[in-house]
Amino acid sequence: MKLVCTQGDLNTHLSLAAHAVPSRPTHPVLANVRLTADGENQYLQLTAFDLSLGIRVTLPAQVESGGEITLPAKLLNDIVSRLPEGEITLEHDADQTLTTLKCASGQYQIQGMSAEEFPELPVVESGKVVHLSTEALVEGLRGTLFATSSDETKQVLTGVHLAVRADGLEFAATDGHRLAVVEVVNLEGEDAPKSEIKEGEVFEVTVPAQAFRELERTMGKRSGTELVALHFDEGQAIFEVDDRRLTSRTLEGSYPAYRQLIPRQFENQVNVDRRQLLGALERIAVIADKKNNIVKFSLDNQGQQLTLSVDAADVGSANEILPVQISGDSMDIAFNVKYVMQSLQNLQSTEIQMQLNTPVSPVILTPLGGTKMTHLVMPVQIRD
Amino acid sequence: MKLVCTQGDLNTHLSLAAHAVPSRPTHPVLANVRLTADGENQYLQLTAFDLSLGIRVTLPAQVESGGEITLPAKLLNDIVSRLPEGEITLEHDADQTLTTLKCASGQYQIQGMSAEEFPELPVVESGKVVHLSTEALVEGLRGTLFATSSDETKQVLTGVHLAVRADGLEFAATDGHRLAVVEVVNLEGEDAPKSEIKEGEVFEVTVPAQAFRELERTMGKRSGTELVALHFDEGQAIFEVDDRRLTSRTLEGSYPAYRQLIPRQFENQVNVDRRQLLGALERIAVIADKKNNIVKFSLDNQGQQLTLSVDAADVGSANEILPVQISGDSMDIAFNVKYVMQSLQNLQSTEIQMQLNTPVSPVILTPLGGTKMTHLVMPVQIRD
Repeated sequence: MKLVCTQGDLNTHLSLAAHAVPSRPTHPVLANVRLTADGENQYLQLTAFDLSLGIRVTLPAQVESGGEITLPAKLLNDIVSRLPEGEITLEHDADQTLTTLKCASGQYQIQGMSAEEFPELPVVESGKVVHLSTEALVEGLRGTLFATSSDETKQVLTGVHLAVRADGLEFAATDGHRLAVVEVVNLEGEDAPKSEIKEGEVFEVTVPAQAFRELERTMGKRSGTELVALHFDEGQAIFEVDDRRLTSRTLEGSYPAYRQLIPRQFENQVNVDRRQLLGALERIAVIADKKNNIVKFSLDNQGQQLTLSVDAADVGSANEILPVQISGDSMDIAFNVKYVMQSLQNLQSTEIQMQLNTPVSPVILTPLGGTKMTHLVMPVQIRD
Repeated sequence: MKLVCTQGDLNTHLSLAAHAVPSRPTHPVLANVRLTADGENQYLQLTAFDLSLGIRVTLPAQVESGGEITLPAKLLNDIVSRLPEGEITLEHDADQTLTTLKCASGQYQIQGMSAEEFPELPVVESGKVVHLSTEALVEGLRGTLFATSSDETKQVLTGVHLAVRADGLEFAATDGHRLAVVEVVNLEGEDAPKSEIKEGEVFEVTVPAQAFRELERTMGKRSGTELVALHFDEGQAIFEVDDRRLTSRTLEGSYPAYRQLIPRQFENQVNVDRRQLLGALERIAVIADKKNNIVKFSLDNQGQQLTLSVDAADVGSANEILPVQISGDSMDIAFNVKYVMQSLQNLQSTEIQMQLNTPVSPVILTPLGGTKMTHLVMPVQIRD
């Protein structure tokens, strides 16, 4: 194997792949990144795989002779990220264990391991394929990822649930205390590949939040209209955009029937500036954090204002007053302040709407305008 | 106590004082910051003290009625830093435990503790005073702090040693493996206060690195020519600049006679670009870190070049070549790469000079131009 590439390209792609390198590898070779030099297509492919999450990226390279080797991912990343800009030559003889990296200022020899020991990334032979714009995908993930559970004993709740239909995709996440649902529409137009899902059919899958966080990162800097292909098969999900591929196992277990939790009708509605409410909650939370994180929302229909209040014995108390548009009754309702804050942080719109019935029934937060996003938060019962 | 100040002023000064609040206070009141409102001079003073390090800062305030109270430092800081810009009213009735903070959007009531329980900051009644420009002080600290020991059993080595003379100040730090010495000149000129140290007299004191790190931070944003007053007394050092005061206990024990470690003559000199050498060492260190951190410097007089090399069995090896100006013999000498890197990071100048005699005797690194700074590093013996 012998090839030349730029420090910039190699550095960017190594950093991306490094996210699939386990911090505590179950097998030594998994601490490595696999380098595959393709002489025919003049590219270098980097693969990392922790047996659940896999990332494969491709960068342009002048490949003099093709070949494969695996190198310690962290060591290689640490060296390449510190190299000055310019060309890098990578060379490895099949009968040696050392790989040589040359740059203008010096030369590095790194002990590698044979690529034969490195497990292959999963492929989906058959299965379902849907296409989505990166923009829609990022929006779906941003609106739901925060609501996944971090409790590893609740397996299926640690993922984001996807319901794929012919005309669109529904993202959902819940940790048992709150629920987030985002509906996005499949890419339409002449260039868009046809969906393989038939009209009326629903395909459901739950993907680990960790894999989706990496996917969000990988997509992050891409233009919004680029296509992402989502392949699903028994136990595996594969996401492809351009020259990047991310694979993940899917989570077993049936996902809760979350739709039935969302009330269909509401008697009260409150419109409020998102940033203003978030700012006030962030301050109030400093006091709430010392007690039980409970903040009381007092809706005043007459004065068209919302009073947030918190009371933590031995620490202090606080209240903040905000102008709002209220239609419905005046009422007091309490929440875990963290759930409301996290929801507001992920709603993005300038104004949001709260829909509610009674102080003990589920409350819905939605953005005014933009993507169809529904955040459900359960209130906390308070004694007066 | 009742006063009005701006969110910006209060936030900045609280953040500064917070550095002297212990994370695990030995007495509950030490987790608080003391607020002293002075009606006569129209200011608010904030004091924090962990019994070793103390910080006192002063901000302008419209004081309606003077008084004192202590409030939980972290809680207050967390709230004030999240408040919108604008005026803040602070009010406390002497017979109540709650202090009220009012701003445009809301109102906070915080449980405090009486200021009577808060220990007084040390004062130096007699003792020595010297004056220094903040620029000289920051330079002295930057050039020495990195070389202090973090080993708490080596008490006196965890501090920076000051030798105060009539005409200047010498900063020194050593952890037993390397030594850093910086000489700065006292501020001269008509406006400069007279030094209280007599000609030929030397006053020596060792101040904990932690206190100096806070002092560096406190000075950081000040203009370079502002005056800092340094007061020293038995067991205490007090630093005053403008409206800020930092106090610290001093370290007991006699400081090593470091001057005699620095060779007076050198047979070999190497001039090299500081950033270039540092960059190469940072890359080489990635490999050295896997073994024993030893990097070999091979000086080639004929080629006027320096080759850095490292060899870590089972990991790999590397070398980097740099152009240098060498006067003296070609030789191989080895160092702990971390000591050389930390020294280079703190030397600041574009070019630096290495002075050396043999591969087993102390090596001196100095900046070319600028402050008189001497970094001594002991080489490591290597077998060929």
